[in-house]
Amino acid sequence: MALPVRTSMKRLLGSIQRCTATKSLCTEGKDTENKVSCGGRVFSGIQPTGVPHLGNYLGALESWVGLQGGFSSVLYSIVDLHAITVPQDPALLRENILDMAASLLACGISPAHSIIFQQSQVSEHAELSWILGCLTSMPRLRHLPQWKMKSKDKKEGSVGLFTYPVLQAADILLYRSTHVPVGEDQVQHLELAQDVARIFNNQYGELFPIPQALLSASRRVKSLRDPASKMSKSDPQRLATVRLTDSPDDIVLKFRKAVTDFTSEVTFDPERRPGVSNLVAIHAAVSGLTAEEAVRSARGMDTAQYKLLVADAVVHKVAPIRIRAGVIWRAF
Amino acid sequence: MALPVRTSMKRLLGSIQRCTATKSLCTEGKDTENKVSCGGRVFSGIQPTGVPHLGNYLGALESWVGLQGGFSSVLYSIVDLHAITVPQDPALLRENILDMAASLLACGISPAHSIIFQQSQVSEHAELSWILGCLTSMPRLRHLPQWKMKSKDKKEGSVGLFTYPVLQAADILLYRSTHVPVGEDQVQHLELAQDVARIFNNQYGELFPIPQALLSASRRVKSLRDPASKMSKSDPQRLATVRLTDSPDDIVLKFRKAVTDFTSEVTFDPERRPGVSNLVAIHAAVSGLTAEEAVRSARGMDTAQYKLLVADAVVHKVAPIRIRAGVIWRAF
Repeated sequence: MALPVRTSMKRLLGSIQRCTATKSLCTEGKDTENKVSCGGRVFSGIQPTGVPHLGNYLGALESWVGLQGGFSSVLYSIVDLHAITVPQDPALLRENILDMAASLLACGISPAHSIIFQQSQVSEHAELSWILGCLTSMPRLRHLPQWKMKSKDKKEGSVGLFTYPVLQAADILLYRSTHVPVGEDQVQHLELAQDVARIFNNQYGELFPIPQALLSASRRVKSLRDPASKMSKSDPQRLATVRLTDSPDDIVLKFRKAVTDFTSEVTFDPERRPGVSNLVAIHAAVSGLTAEEAVRSARGMDTAQYKLLVADAVVHKVAPIRIRAGVIWRAF
Repeated sequence: MALPVRTSMKRLLGSIQRCTATKSLCTEGKDTENKVSCGGRVFSGIQPTGVPHLGNYLGALESWVGLQGGFSSVLYSIVDLHAITVPQDPALLRENILDMAASLLACGISPAHSIIFQQSQVSEHAELSWILGCLTSMPRLRHLPQWKMKSKDKKEGSVGLFTYPVLQAADILLYRSTHVPVGEDQVQHLELAQDVARIFNNQYGELFPIPQALLSASRRVKSLRDPASKMSKSDPQRLATVRLTDSPDDIVLKFRKAVTDFTSEVTFDPERRPGVSNLVAIHAAVSGLTAEEAVRSARGMDTAQYKLLVADAVVHKVAPIRIRAGVIWRAF
């Protein structure tokens, strides 16, 4: 269920902006909350898919929270211009933007330490994207693996779907960002941004720093109903996906029904035992353990008992987020 | 030689804007200078190639002048975002934008009747281009003949060169334009704008009027040195191209040296006698005659005498433009 935070988009985003405005883009060298700032500027974007799920949180958002204070400035964008590269229902998209904004706040992205904004509110993303598109060759873009995959899925995609890595490059370079947290599947897109920055700098003088990847630990949370697939918001099976605002009862139910196999022992073997290994990976991630430590903590349990242990650990991790989301929801 | 109007881009464009600002986008139904307005809004764009040549003037700009007052509003844009789809020297591009702006004024595009502006100063062109790109399929764009031709010339063009018909659609639709003066070679691009407008309207409700072509009389002025090619600013042969600011002596020289053939009679037969037929076409266009009337007026002359007659007619047409350009140049 989506968070009902959609009564006033302007109010919510306005409030984020007021908090954010006090944080300048030019605080290089300052450190926040006693963390040592290493200088530089972090940029990352997330599509407005509504309330994030556990996979979004463990794969990206948790590390986003951790990056705050470690850099001179940190920018997180809700990238709605990327969202429209595939068909969208306008009312639902507006709702999802608000839900994502509220969720980012609830996860611990703080407007006091980060600049949170809606991509389409800043005209310069589209403008720089046009300019960088004039410096990008067609074959360079055509060979990116994501286009090959996406256009295959959809027979032939839109021009927007084809050119979105150029918009990503613009998102990053627009703020002269130096660091970009990325998953492994986005490394080649960051390489495009690096290449385009070099081409621009060579032709027109040094303007853009070459942005560096901040590779996050690979945490690919799988569907609880089909451990061969990634956890996804659009999964038609309701029990497959744990959303950050799920109630504790819902979370326990989803883990109790999680697909495993016919062996009751708890082991970590993603190739041969993807279902139980997904539980171990989630358990490890939410508890700050290694997979081996998680398996050790399950000694003597069968998978049914272990599911409840993992569910408990997830509830423990997610409860504060759900509570903060509720506070934000009541405030707007 | 470029007009030396580059001392103050801001001053020139600012002045155009001040004149233009009094002309609202919403004067539907009013008529100007006793011309009967047929309602609707005209949009057209011209690339900043510096001072236009006779081909630009007879092929487009003269009809632009004529459209003023015939519609509720008329917008003419110097489309620098299109110019950068191929490599540009930044200083020369800035100079060319100013020269084009001064030339438009000198040709009779009046800020009192038209809105003249630099495309890149309006962020919404790039923004709407992104949105429309998300509604345009890749095959639709790939099959446009201009991409096939241009990418063949340059082996493989940039992403900007590929997507520029989408930016053209945005240029037109951004102002909800109803009429677009186009040459025959641009008809398919206007059809793309029409298609994208329909797709948008179908999905999100009626927003964009479907823009109609104002097909200008096909006046393709050829090079004076090689009548098989179009007259072009980038022609390496100085005598091939008549610029609107050429002195009368220069114009006479260029026509005297114009390539014709070994028959001295003046006839109009573009297939078999392209050189002399180009002279006839230019003569007809600048004098408001048909080709037949122009040929009749040359009765008893050989081509050498006729060249001087045509040069005189061109000087007569172009002199007021050159004088006005001089006034504008001295004013800034």
